[in-house]
Amino acid sequence: MKRIAVLTSGGDAPGMNAAIRAVVRKAISEGIEVYGINHGYAGMVAGDIFPLTAGSVSDLVGRGGTFLYSARFPEFAQLEGQLAGIEQLKKHGIEGVVVIGGDGSYHGAMRLTEHGFPAVGLPGTIDNDIVGTDYTIGFDTAVSTVVDAIDKIRDTSSSHHRTFIVEVMGRNAGDIALWSAIAAGADDVCIPEREFKFENVVNNIKKGYEKGKNHHIIVLAEGVMSGQEFAMKLKAAGDDSDLRVAVLGHIQRGGSPTVRDRVIASRMGARAVELLRDGIGGVAVGIQKEVLVESPILGKAEDNALFSLGADGEIIVNNPHKADLELYLLNRDMNNLNLY
Amino acid sequence: MKRIAVLTSGGDAPGMNAAIRAVVRKAISEGIEVYGINHGYAGMVAGDIFPLTAGSVSDLVGRGGTFLYSARFPEFAQLEGQLAGIEQLKKHGIEGVVVIGGDGSYHGAMRLTEHGFPAVGLPGTIDNDIVGTDYTIGFDTAVSTVVDAIDKIRDTSSSHHRTFIVEVMGRNAGDIALWSAIAAGADDVCIPEREFKFENVVNNIKKGYEKGKNHHIIVLAEGVMSGQEFAMKLKAAGDDSDLRVAVLGHIQRGGSPTVRDRVIASRMGARAVELLRDGIGGVAVGIQKEVLVESPILGKAEDNALFSLGADGEIIVNNPHKADLELYLLNRDMNNLNLY
Amino acid sequence: MKRIAVLTSGGDAPGMNAAIRAVVRKAISEGIEVYGINHGYAGMVAGDIFPLTAGSVSDLVGRGGTFLYSARFPEFAQLEGQLAGIEQLKKHGIEGVVVIGGDGSYHGAMRLTEHGFPAVGLPGTIDNDIVGTDYTIGFDTAVSTVVDAIDKIRDTSSSHHRTFIVEVMGRNAGDIALWSAIAAGADDVCIPEREFKFENVVNNIKKGYEKGKNHHIIVLAEGVMSGQEFAMKLKAAGDDSDLRVAVLGHIQRGGSPTVRDRVIASRMGARAVELLRDGIGGVAVGIQKEVLVESPILGKAEDNALFSLGADGEIIVNNPHKADLELYLLNRDMNNLNLY
Amino acid sequence: MKRIAVLTSGGDAPGMNAAIRAVVRKAISEGIEVYGINHGYAGMVAGDIFPLTAGSVSDLVGRGGTFLYSARFPEFAQLEGQLAGIEQLKKHGIEGVVVIGGDGSYHGAMRLTEHGFPAVGLPGTIDNDIVGTDYTIGFDTAVSTVVDAIDKIRDTSSSHHRTFIVEVMGRNAGDIALWSAIAAGADDVCIPEREFKFENVVNNIKKGYEKGKNHHIIVLAEGVMSGQEFAMKLKAAGDDSDLRVAVLGHIQRGGSPTVRDRVIASRMGARAVELLRDGIGGVAVGIQKEVLVESPILGKAEDNALFSLGADGEIIVNNPHKADLELYLLNRDMNNLNLY
Repeated sequence: MKRIAVLTSGGDAPGMNAAIRAVVRKAISEGIEVYGINHGYAGMVAGDIFPLTAGSVSDLVGRGGTFLYSARFPEFAQLEGQLAGIEQLKKHGIEGVVVIGGDGSYHGAMRLTEHGFPAVGLPGTIDNDIVGTDYTIGFDTAVSTVVDAIDKIRDTSSSHHRTFIVEVMGRNAGDIALWSAIAAGADDVCIPEREFKFENVVNNIKKGYEKGKNHHIIVLAEGVMSGQEFAMKLKAAGDDSDLRVAVLGHIQRGGSPTVRDRVIASRMGARAVELLRDGIGGVAVGIQKEVLVESPILGKAEDNALFSLGADGEIIVNNPHKADLELYLLNRDMNNLNLY
Repeated sequence: MKRIAVLTSGGDAPGMNAAIRAVVRKAISEGIEVYGINHGYAGMVAGDIFPLTAGSVSDLVGRGGTFLYSARFPEFAQLEGQLAGIEQLKKHGIEGVVVIGGDGSYHGAMRLTEHGFPAVGLPGTIDNDIVGTDYTIGFDTAVSTVVDAIDKIRDTSSSHHRTFIVEVMGRNAGDIALWSAIAAGADDVCIPEREFKFENVVNNIKKGYEKGKNHHIIVLAEGVMSGQEFAMKLKAAGDDSDLRVAVLGHIQRGGSPTVRDRVIASRMGARAVELLRDGIGGVAVGIQKEVLVESPILGKAEDNALFSLGADGEIIVNNPHKADLELYLLNRDMNNLNLY
Repeated sequence: MKRIAVLTSGGDAPGMNAAIRAVVRKAISEGIEVYGINHGYAGMVAGDIFPLTAGSVSDLVGRGGTFLYSARFPEFAQLEGQLAGIEQLKKHGIEGVVVIGGDGSYHGAMRLTEHGFPAVGLPGTIDNDIVGTDYTIGFDTAVSTVVDAIDKIRDTSSSHHRTFIVEVMGRNAGDIALWSAIAAGADDVCIPEREFKFENVVNNIKKGYEKGKNHHIIVLAEGVMSGQEFAMKLKAAGDDSDLRVAVLGHIQRGGSPTVRDRVIASRMGARAVELLRDGIGGVAVGIQKEVLVESPILGKAEDNALFSLGADGEIIVNNPHKADLELYLLNRDMNNLNLY
Repeated sequence: MKRIAVLTSGGDAPGMNAAIRAVVRKAISEGIEVYGINHGYAGMVAGDIFPLTAGSVSDLVGRGGTFLYSARFPEFAQLEGQLAGIEQLKKHGIEGVVVIGGDGSYHGAMRLTEHGFPAVGLPGTIDNDIVGTDYTIGFDTAVSTVVDAIDKIRDTSSSHHRTFIVEVMGRNAGDIALWSAIAAGADDVCIPEREFKFENVVNNIKKGYEKGKNHHIIVLAEGVMSGQEFAMKLKAAGDDSDLRVAVLGHIQRGGSPTVRDRVIASRMGARAVELLRDGIGGVAVGIQKEVLVESPILGKAEDNALFSLGADGEIIVNNPHKADLELYLLNRDMNNLNLY
């Protein structure tokens, strides 16, 4: 393979730039030319493609966001979109592609591979909800941002004996909530993967203040419900504390990536190039038990494929990502109010 | 004066702990004993009062919030509340009080002084809206938190060519918005002190994208309107960009104070003790043109008093705080889109 | 087990407080009382032992250092020291101990266990050089501090076209150097585990500037030699660039722990209590391939013991910690100067 | 004036980029073209000069260092160097220059003005030792970096009951030391502007530990002596504590500028353009008592000039910068060990 391209797709995540840098530097180190594609699959179709040099990714390892811009482009699910993209790849002499993004973008990578353009997916999202990897690029940074915010909220919360509901991102996954609850020492955490009763939360709040705590912080995964709705239900269930809602919002998507994110992004970016170099596409790179792995994006469950096609052509997720419930139990033990 | 007390009142602000520490250490250094009062004036009335030692404020200079807790206590505006508080002061042998908080809390300090208990006010609030001082304790830290958040939002904003409305605190003052707009390089800023037209904002957004900018960030002071309302009006005025709202919320009240806040808090805390030591009360400490000053809380305008009583007994604010409009013009020049 | 104690030993590391907090909270949650021992084994022998409550570890999860203080105490290698310590444990009714520290402190844990007081070791050190675990408590934070420092040094380095040797900690291990080199995008890294030639470093520097780079940053593990010595040898080997040395020093040992360190410290602390609860001692907790494991401190290599006794009673380290040389190669590829 | 240029000279400082951005944006907003000069006066002489657009300074407000690079160039003190520089200015049609740097670079600005090319100086250095301004661009950031480092050192210092000498920058000025001592709550501070006795420092250390303190941190300005020398003298004077030296070094020169530095840099940059627009050169901008001022670089003391020529042609500094000794006394009061 003489020339490859790299793009970012879907929501942006800290560490995407570090991954792009690693793709570029590793490729050139292997004697392969690299092109950047702006705006994800949309830019591929539009021909927004340009050469990258080793120098063009200098000082990028620590930058948040993605300098190649990102976008969602549902049209790439259609054959027409794919062929338009491939025409551009051909025009620029590109033989393989690295796609950094969520699992939506993996399907595009699969299609490109089927059309004869090997493509490799890298898991780039703060939500940590991608199949085939223990951690996604951006997750550690997002949790770090959340913990920093909760540390600040705790200052003001303690000063006024307030209860705070801190709504965090994560789509349908509770990972950001769980990790940040443990790391920030939150009093309670509510995630989509685990049922809970509002009465119990209300009891915890009451008991905490009775035992002399000067604040009560609840980390709420957005996948459960909105902070506002949660607050209303908590009040309806009898909470009479001075209750506030903090929706952390988009600050969670930005910021300079943590060491951990920079390192896994660099490792994954380099691995993607090795795979393309060896002519391998249609796979996604992940990290499992600290080891880099690649999994077929589409195939049979017994071959470890991330997705399979069902009898009616529907997509089946094999081994969907699961939040680490050990952390849920750990947080409960850390905040067992019977022990004060 | 042999024994004084210190309390924090109103909304908490980063640097309040540094101010308390300075009061304690300076007092002891002057041979004066110091007591802490928890929960502001409410705690004074309730007798939640206890001795502080030099060691009890160790490692507090860099902590956010206030370890004496804060509270609003409107009952202290009534004579009954004041007398109840004074009874507690007498009981504990306290002869003077340092009150750290917003200008609401200054009135309590005035009342105490009138009753024979000299009290000195220190300006503690992130909003920078207190009369008699160029800067309040907590303002620099709050702006720093806002700028850090905007830096993160810009990462994701640039990655997706998005327009962001960032709603920041400040009550009726635009200071936090102005300073953070300059420091974060925001494209637009809207403050209560300055009228603006939604059509102009819409035009700026359009022009910016036409000229090749990859994001547009508007800092909105909460005193103007809510971010949500602003977004609706912007849409109504014709904005067709990918628009998002970020309400920074309570993270702005917390966090380890900046150097600037630690230093002015320390200086003001020490000054308050010097004033009480010299038997002076009924004044508030401020910093004006880099110099510590004290102003009578209540009196005549020509005597430089912060507040006067009108003919009908209403409170008149002399020389109310004004945001620095030079910064408004500077930001406009920094973002003159005709120049791209 | 009705009552256990916890101590920190050896060099302090960020996350030790999070581990102590987890020990305390988990123990109480299991109905076990917890005592703290100040100053490590020295404090045990001196009887500096006191009860801890759930509240006494509030707000500690994010604090650097160790609030139980740490110390080195070689006397505990002698039977006399051990017996003196045990006498104190008996006196306070303590039946088991959690020891957080380097592998030196594991031996003390082994001795206590042999004397009938089950003790569990947790790996607390920034150096990441402890046998039986992929990561130590404090390592992620230390690397994060180093990367933050290099980011700053790069600013000034680029402004002046300077070459910087950044000496980092790690004792005989290159882990801190390797991770921070990757994460900071350093141009070169020198570690004890890998030989290098000064001529090659000199060539890299020259080539970099020739190719238009505006700085050259070399991360040097202290296990190789001091930064000062390195600089002299580099000059002797022909370097003629504007060369500076930055010795990061003790800032690497402090600071609020990262999310990753807070989470593994919390998990390990809780696990230590589960082991003691089940009567298990003489083991050290580690994390291997993302899973918590416990290994016998002393025993046979085939039983997975960390240490064995040789024929002459000498201590043999089974499977000593090795730095991840994949990162070394990755850094080389990221900085292949032939590719500019 | 139709076209101006901007350069940075001497040691780099955080906020220089914000100042450059303000010069560029303000100039274009005034209808004036702007060129950048790389590498200070050396680049002027070498003709390393190129046009800047509003877009070329995007996202620079928060970057450390200077993207125009900096250098010392003593040759510019000679007429020959000056004429060579002026030839380049003429060649590029440049009519005025903004020079950001230390007071050394002000003299070059004076010379250019005398040759008919109005030049304005801006105070850019972390040391805060420039005549004519209360604060320099970069000072607030440097102190912030120092305080952050001391916060980390205190963690490890407290854990081990250690005494730390923290050597900080500042050349002959004690400002960085004084501000960081107050803000970090250091136990002692030694600056060139104030004599001290080693015996007193030793006594403070002893007394502190006797009174139960668990660390002793001394901030030492480099203008006094090196940390290593200080340590030896402290030992010679009888200190028997566990003493360590931390030399913070070049991290103090880098990092993203604080809000305060970004704002004063932006204000000063815009002011410099206004002055050139009005045909004014040979002055330096400063901030005095929170107000922007400009002072003649060379002239009579009664005209407020920064420098005058003496009878023998020697340069006299009028009103040299003085550190704020109020802070020295404040720190002493904050750490009066008799009060524990």
